[in-house]
Amino acid sequence: MRRIAFSDRRGGTLGMTVTAAFLIIGNEILSGRTQDKNLSFAGQKLAAVGIILKEARVIPDDPAVIIETVRGLSAAYDYVFTSGGIGPTHDDITADCVAEAFDLPIDIDPEARRRLEVHYAGTDMELNEARLRMARIPEGASLIDNPISAAPGFIVRNVHVMAGVPRIMQAMLEGVLPTLKAGRPVGAVTIRSNLAEGMAAARLGALAAEMPDIDFGSYPHWTTEGFSLSLVARGDDPARLDIAAEALEEMIRDLGATPERISD
Amino acid sequence: MRRIAFSDRRGGTLGMTVTAAFLIIGNEILSGRTQDKNLSFAGQKLAAVGIILKEARVIPDDPAVIIETVRGLSAAYDYVFTSGGIGPTHDDITADCVAEAFDLPIDIDPEARRRLEVHYAGTDMELNEARLRMARIPEGASLIDNPISAAPGFIVRNVHVMAGVPRIMQAMLEGVLPTLKAGRPVGAVTIRSNLAEGMAAARLGALAAEMPDIDFGSYPHWTTEGFSLSLVARGDDPARLDIAAEALEEMIRDLGATPERISD
Repeated sequence: MRRIAFSDRRGGTLGMTVTAAFLIIGNEILSGRTQDKNLSFAGQKLAAVGIILKEARVIPDDPAVIIETVRGLSAAYDYVFTSGGIGPTHDDITADCVAEAFDLPIDIDPEARRRLEVHYAGTDMELNEARLRMARIPEGASLIDNPISAAPGFIVRNVHVMAGVPRIMQAMLEGVLPTLKAGRPVGAVTIRSNLAEGMAAARLGALAAEMPDIDFGSYPHWTTEGFSLSLVARGDDPARLDIAAEALEEMIRDLGATPERISD
Repeated sequence: MRRIAFSDRRGGTLGMTVTAAFLIIGNEILSGRTQDKNLSFAGQKLAAVGIILKEARVIPDDPAVIIETVRGLSAAYDYVFTSGGIGPTHDDITADCVAEAFDLPIDIDPEARRRLEVHYAGTDMELNEARLRMARIPEGASLIDNPISAAPGFIVRNVHVMAGVPRIMQAMLEGVLPTLKAGRPVGAVTIRSNLAEGMAAARLGALAAEMPDIDFGSYPHWTTEGFSLSLVARGDDPARLDIAAEALEEMIRDLGATPERISD
């Protein structure tokens, strides 16, 4: 049953694979109180510039765990992206933990402070001590713009520290994307039908073995309109992706169903 | 800035903490194609029986990664729950990988096969070779019932292997919950207001320091109706939780806002 890992079977493009991990920090995700929405956004945006998310982790607001995880992921991947824990409250400890992970001093950053001062001057809120904590930045870090609420994220080595609130995290990631070392963009094509997964399995497996440069997936779902199967091909060569999509459509027709191609 | 970890500050109840990790297996979650919905469901259900999710991971359909991660998480926590990769297609490799993680033989399980036979006999679908792969179960495992589509999950040592499709995963977890070693159920209370997070931060931090047995969180969100702040207290002693909730309400009133208690 051995199957070669996604990145390993990229053959000739292996050297161009840029890898990343996504680290979600916050008790509220593990308790189930909050549904994470950042991972899927980041996965899509990063794939579009050829950066492959190889793993994601969700960890609690626990300094020892954050420090150890940041160190481990930073060493294992080209990039690490974190979300959560950079606000003004006692449980916002990401910046201090990232500093400690890399043995860096951390203090109020003048430029971060300036941005907060400008932001709060335009509101009826004051830049109190708690809010000023959001200007604590590890020494030598670059700031990540926060066009929503000013308090910046930052980059230390290969670690990109972002907010947890989805619209802030999304704005931060969009701002950072153009600065990243891009790989070959990974495209995807989805072919939908009402074919049963167990009917598609044998031929889909054969196709996956025939085209090791394409990542094939099979995702059944049930909606109010009934059963639907999404067969997905992903790869970084548009011509090969097109061949894969046509092969999937032919397979579905051969098996007596009607394929519908969805552009991703 | 050192802050004591959630489990470590449970003081007298430390010995009663039951821990778990949630492992999501599937390229489609990392690529952003599919939004995971299983983690938040599991986090809530497990907390309600006193099992604390200490971390979650999302990993690709890569045998070496699955095997290594299952081994590591199984050794680190009381329980591991996995979702994804137990269907009939070539990328469904979880069962084989879990078997390999524990050096167990794996083959068609007679009871799992019987359940599939009964299920497919009642449909217009045949139990073909691909579907029969869903009866492959590591030797000595207990089956987890699948009331939706018959193909069972299974339990090997402390690892609970479940489907990725949310309604099947949810049914499997509900079935398994009564069999787990329970801890002290963790309750939560949410106090909502329009208080700015930066205004609450100082007193919230003081309250968190005063009540180390309670986990306090602060979660701002913006909806179409405007800004809202959820202050959350979590703990396993209902009387202490009530004291925490009242302290939060008093704090919000003192700061000029109106608290609204939401029962979780």
